[in-house]
Amino acid sequence: MYYIGIDIGGMSVKGGLVDATGKIYVKDSFKTNPTEDPTVMIADIAKLCRSLSEKSGVKLEDIKGVGIGVPGTINNQTGVITYANNINFENVPIVAELKKHISLPVQIGNDANCAALGEVAFGSAKGMDNIIFVTLGTGVGSGIILDGKIFEGQGGAGAEAGHMCLVLGGELCTCGKRGCWEAYASATALIRQTKRAAEKYPNSLLAKTIAEEGKVSGRTAFVAARANDPAGKAVVKRYVRYIAEGLVSLVNIFRPTALIIGGGISNEGDYLIKRLQRLVSYYSYGGKRNPDVKVIKAELLNDAGILGAAALLLK
Amino acid sequence: MYYIGIDIGGMSVKGGLVDATGKIYVKDSFKTNPTEDPTVMIADIAKLCRSLSEKSGVKLEDIKGVGIGVPGTINNQTGVITYANNINFENVPIVAELKKHISLPVQIGNDANCAALGEVAFGSAKGMDNIIFVTLGTGVGSGIILDGKIFEGQGGAGAEAGHMCLVLGGELCTCGKRGCWEAYASATALIRQTKRAAEKYPNSLLAKTIAEEGKVSGRTAFVAARANDPAGKAVVKRYVRYIAEGLVSLVNIFRPTALIIGGGISNEGDYLIKRLQRLVSYYSYGGKRNPDVKVIKAELLNDAGILGAAALLLK
Repeated sequence: MYYIGIDIGGMSVKGGLVDATGKIYVKDSFKTNPTEDPTVMIADIAKLCRSLSEKSGVKLEDIKGVGIGVPGTINNQTGVITYANNINFENVPIVAELKKHISLPVQIGNDANCAALGEVAFGSAKGMDNIIFVTLGTGVGSGIILDGKIFEGQGGAGAEAGHMCLVLGGELCTCGKRGCWEAYASATALIRQTKRAAEKYPNSLLAKTIAEEGKVSGRTAFVAARANDPAGKAVVKRYVRYIAEGLVSLVNIFRPTALIIGGGISNEGDYLIKRLQRLVSYYSYGGKRNPDVKVIKAELLNDAGILGAAALLLK
Repeated sequence: MYYIGIDIGGMSVKGGLVDATGKIYVKDSFKTNPTEDPTVMIADIAKLCRSLSEKSGVKLEDIKGVGIGVPGTINNQTGVITYANNINFENVPIVAELKKHISLPVQIGNDANCAALGEVAFGSAKGMDNIIFVTLGTGVGSGIILDGKIFEGQGGAGAEAGHMCLVLGGELCTCGKRGCWEAYASATALIRQTKRAAEKYPNSLLAKTIAEEGKVSGRTAFVAARANDPAGKAVVKRYVRYIAEGLVSLVNIFRPTALIIGGGISNEGDYLIKRLQRLVSYYSYGGKRNPDVKVIKAELLNDAGILGAAALLLK
């Protein structure tokens, strides 16, 4: 059996035809235009589905359904995108609208939740029923899988672990509140922390690299730390602690089998993951008396969106 | 049909015979002796069950089972109390042991989880399937009900929301970590905050009351605040904010139907609950765009332990 996974993003809509093992047969995409009426994008998604069917030679009737990952809040019961600011959608009945064009079952999910489900179905968390997926990118996203299913709370408005309080009254978050985990553990936060350290230690390798390259990224501090620069190491050490403290909160609440780390920052690989594992095991409530929780790097990377959306159809 | 609820505490073991509507027919109890072998207490629990049956005139065969609430970590699959420091139990197979004495189905649960389930079955959250119960007492306990069932994580080691990080690197918690919600929002924490304020403002009503009474309780600051004392009001305002920020984290993660507030501090009633509601509604992620979460005072009070334990048998 085949599935279509659609990954709606702020820049483009990607689609792929996938089988039950997570193999992608064909991919295609089109550019997002946030000024258009939502019905235009939905009609284009229908076209994308037909094009995926044609290119792969898999007939529409052999496709079990279409899964759509959305960068925002969705209501899975009603099939409505409640709010997705990146694509300028508010209360869009995407499932009903798409069914006007194409007679296939349609499921929608929040993109971080889909990514979590994708890791369980096809990636690093295969065979695990209880995991928390955390994506460290522009923000801190989270997807919660309990008993093999997405947990998203009332009206799909839960699973916003990036907005747990980490430092009461601390850094201002994009959500308007102060001290959110996201304001400390996102790539954006790391860039801010890196800039501050470079200003404070103008003779550090960190500061010199930034001056030479003329920019700061989420990698800058890690590169300096790996080159044994004290300023870089201090930034990374503190940043890793910020991530870990939020993870520990999630462990104490959910005690999942594993924490899956995705997003751009996860590309630091073992250098990051091993440090996180050590801190999570050490600081989690009850220490060695309670089951240990594995910290694992996400696997699906660029195809996470398509595979995660397709995974919505699997159960 | 009837049920027996057993509430194991650090001071005493209480039991009650309950029907499916939460009516308690008879209650009885015996004192806890932490130096005894666990088998002694378990034999006494069996005696308590028989005595409840006799006193109520309800035959053992008309009792559907025994539910036991435990102040510690339990494994519901194996029927083992993993660790309960108050009663000095470690890896005690209480279900198997109790069945040597009494031929009834036995279910065990963590006490905070039982209290949460009790509120859903018989109390303030009747008819709600997704709630978080938070008890503000010596510590901060939590019970999570998802889809009408206790959620407790791997090995029963989750639902420790009191040990979420609230202030990174802040006050030392009894768990050994710094900055836990419990270290700011428990009655113990409030007493500490009250003492500090009294030292800082020796001419306040707050300080004078403490000097007169010779002691500080979780009520002291609330009493002073109600009498319009600026020091008391400041303590309460900050303390309520501490509670609210942790509740907001839970809302952002779970977006439950309601937050149920129990424990000694909940006796402050509307004065506390209304302030919490305002802050939770204001600070929760997405503001008015997302479903509002009700803050409600727990109802079962002194009988919560017995009723919550009995509720373990209901599903």
